[in-house]
Amino acid sequence: MLTDRLRNEFVALLGEDRVHTDPAILALYASDETPKSCLPEAVLFPAGHDHAAGIVAIAAREKLPITPRGAGSGNVGGALPTPGSLVVSFECMNHILEFDPDNRLMVVEPGVVTDDIDELAATAGLMYAPDPGSGAYSRIGGNLAMNAAGPRAVKYGTTRDHVLGLRAVLGDGREIRTGSRTTKYATGYDLTRLLVGSEGTLALITEATLKLLPAPRRVATLRVCYASNRTACEAVIRAMRQPVVPYALEFMDHRSIEAIREYGAVEGLPYGTQAILMAEVEGDAEDIPRYLAALECALRGDGLLEIQSGFSPKEITHLWTARKSLSHAVKKIAPLKINEDVVVPVAKLADLVDAIDKLGHKHGLPLVAFGHAGNGNLHVNIMVHQNDADEMARARACRLELVETVLGLSGSLSGEHGIGSEKRPFVSLEFEPATLDLMRQIKTLFDPHGILNPGKKLPD
Amino acid sequence: MLTDRLRNEFVALLGEDRVHTDPAILALYASDETPKSCLPEAVLFPAGHDHAAGIVAIAAREKLPITPRGAGSGNVGGALPTPGSLVVSFECMNHILEFDPDNRLMVVEPGVVTDDIDELAATAGLMYAPDPGSGAYSRIGGNLAMNAAGPRAVKYGTTRDHVLGLRAVLGDGREIRTGSRTTKYATGYDLTRLLVGSEGTLALITEATLKLLPAPRRVATLRVCYASNRTACEAVIRAMRQPVVPYALEFMDHRSIEAIREYGAVEGLPYGTQAILMAEVEGDAEDIPRYLAALECALRGDGLLEIQSGFSPKEITHLWTARKSLSHAVKKIAPLKINEDVVVPVAKLADLVDAIDKLGHKHGLPLVAFGHAGNGNLHVNIMVHQNDADEMARARACRLELVETVLGLSGSLSGEHGIGSEKRPFVSLEFEPATLDLMRQIKTLFDPHGILNPGKKLPD
Repeated sequence: MLTDRLRNEFVALLGEDRVHTDPAILALYASDETPKSCLPEAVLFPAGHDHAAGIVAIAAREKLPITPRGAGSGNVGGALPTPGSLVVSFECMNHILEFDPDNRLMVVEPGVVTDDIDELAATAGLMYAPDPGSGAYSRIGGNLAMNAAGPRAVKYGTTRDHVLGLRAVLGDGREIRTGSRTTKYATGYDLTRLLVGSEGTLALITEATLKLLPAPRRVATLRVCYASNRTACEAVIRAMRQPVVPYALEFMDHRSIEAIREYGAVEGLPYGTQAILMAEVEGDAEDIPRYLAALECALRGDGLLEIQSGFSPKEITHLWTARKSLSHAVKKIAPLKINEDVVVPVAKLADLVDAIDKLGHKHGLPLVAFGHAGNGNLHVNIMVHQNDADEMARARACRLELVETVLGLSGSLSGEHGIGSEKRPFVSLEFEPATLDLMRQIKTLFDPHGILNPGKKLPD
Repeated sequence: MLTDRLRNEFVALLGEDRVHTDPAILALYASDETPKSCLPEAVLFPAGHDHAAGIVAIAAREKLPITPRGAGSGNVGGALPTPGSLVVSFECMNHILEFDPDNRLMVVEPGVVTDDIDELAATAGLMYAPDPGSGAYSRIGGNLAMNAAGPRAVKYGTTRDHVLGLRAVLGDGREIRTGSRTTKYATGYDLTRLLVGSEGTLALITEATLKLLPAPRRVATLRVCYASNRTACEAVIRAMRQPVVPYALEFMDHRSIEAIREYGAVEGLPYGTQAILMAEVEGDAEDIPRYLAALECALRGDGLLEIQSGFSPKEITHLWTARKSLSHAVKKIAPLKINEDVVVPVAKLADLVDAIDKLGHKHGLPLVAFGHAGNGNLHVNIMVHQNDADEMARARACRLELVETVLGLSGSLSGEHGIGSEKRPFVSLEFEPATLDLMRQIKTLFDPHGILNPGKKLPD
């Protein structure tokens, strides 16, 4: 319970309406998209950098843990409060501070909704390339914290490839600026990319200078149905080996197809479809036929059952129906989704998908695998009933084996969701002790009192 | 002087032929491309990671400074030995360990010549995108240390955008691995990009996993002559605002043109040419006319005197003659070149070029400015006579004013050459004290005894 003294101190700093201890409000900020929850001591809404710095100064002095939060749309517990913590929500720091089309950059506060950045950029023929699925509501600060990404990452990279500089507050209140406003930079250490993906454990980001690129011109889409997972994954390798880099290259496995069929979202998939690839190209109108032909040529091969193409927005939307329905479809399998976000080198995708299938059989659980195949990044949904203790035990064993399989394939625990609290137990399986120790020391350097998002990212 | 005991210890570790104290050899390793030199105590040639780790273990114990070295082709003193240091040359660690076209990656030792990486990639229709001018002889380890870049950075970014993971030895001998073999990664802190550009002050890199992209298909070139620097720089802004991202966009100012005319390398430049832009596009044969037309349209405007285009290798080479002759041409002005490598937001380029011109007049020195205009990154050569004390004093004053001007235009000290020893005096002008202190603390964390390339990157 926040003491009156501290409450008053925060009110003096932020104003009465930016400090909340009402249980109904606390409950709204007690979780993210994981099924866990933990009531914070208070929810604070800084309005600017100085507020954030002031909050940290007080928290550091009092050794109060801080849980930074954007929209709370993450699914690994990154914004899940820890006991005794203050949620610091950046929702009110939602201003676009500067839009500079001539220098192809935008300066934003962390609470700006991701899609709003791209929309503003589009007014000048530009885009903010990272396109996480949650973009309509996620905040850029959360994206930065988790190094978020979406389907366009196969062509344009992830969040950390689009950040020129940051302003931030460290765990002991020190205020820093990283990077520059320039697109080349060889001056200081690259603190920008140390902070991106650090999940709120090294600093609170209060401002970001984002890089913009020319907006996509035309997009065309292929939906390709295969008779097996393996032949679809082999097509992914071929697609990534030819010169036209896809604008998207997404995969759905046989369980995804089953779920979608059950859900009734899509009719007319060829009989025997076990896997689907969604592939897109982007370019001028004159480029599209040639790019699509090149991609199609690569995707043709063993196991191909059908290719459909779409050019108009209506056709494209229709082709994506199956993929877009998947979230809802999997919920019909079981109420709780344990969501892994593993990544392997692209050429290991077929082995990974095979292994996932075997794991499902071994542990008697439905595993649905789909995702950003062009980067080797799959979301693996383990569908379970939370109240079934046996199922939950099998799920834990299954997760561990999945992680071991992924690491054995030279992969990594997370391609884009981050670690949060949910994947911490596995982190020490991935890193050599010396590397992990170094990361811990960096954490201590940035946050000597350990108040920034404790219990996340690095194992104790 | 290296004691016999220590000499023997290194010989036991590396072998007799990998430990050199002969004065003739020491002299060869006493400098880089700056005009300074300092004899090291010894030159060591590790053959692999374990050698490097062993060297650091001994050096850390004895508090012996290490100067890591690739080809010594840098121009900021990065590989300049400090008194009492051991040069650790990675020349012998020049093996390509793995080439994996299906996963579009290559694993290399730090001594591999940069162009060799690109050549091997090309055999599979791929490229290593960073193209520093020194690529024919620079080593990838040096490129990584300095975050090197070249003309292609305007389209493809710099070295740090093309590194998936590293293996390295810290200053106290700890051995770490950073990053992954995957093209998306959200697991640990991004230590990879902390090390890239750290100029050998945080760790010795012993292995790098590099990302490859599809190789360029066709390239076409424009040489565009303008009546003034300002109109050329305004054309740069227009070029960077339209959707076709140039494959190169290089600028030469009026003093560059004067030098080239004097040198006689190019005839037939239109009368009144004060600035030249070299612009390139890349794509399929079918794309080239359209891309070139878009770029040309953007480059046309006030001040345009002439546009010439080139499509065949011969035509392209011919158009680049002026630019390629510039290095030699400036040497005719004066024997010593003080080479600044400043970077500003692209829209500030015209102001920067104006300011450079004024600085030249103010200090009575020839300043030649040219470079990677699409990134706002200019090389500013201050041409002086080393033995003229007055000139050297004016050059120092001029450098300081240049730096202050660049910082006032929201720029940064270095776009690609790095800081080394030569630019350290200016670093504290760019960073707020808290940010600089944090970098120093990171340095101390990675290198507690301060043995890795002391006297470089960060001011004392």
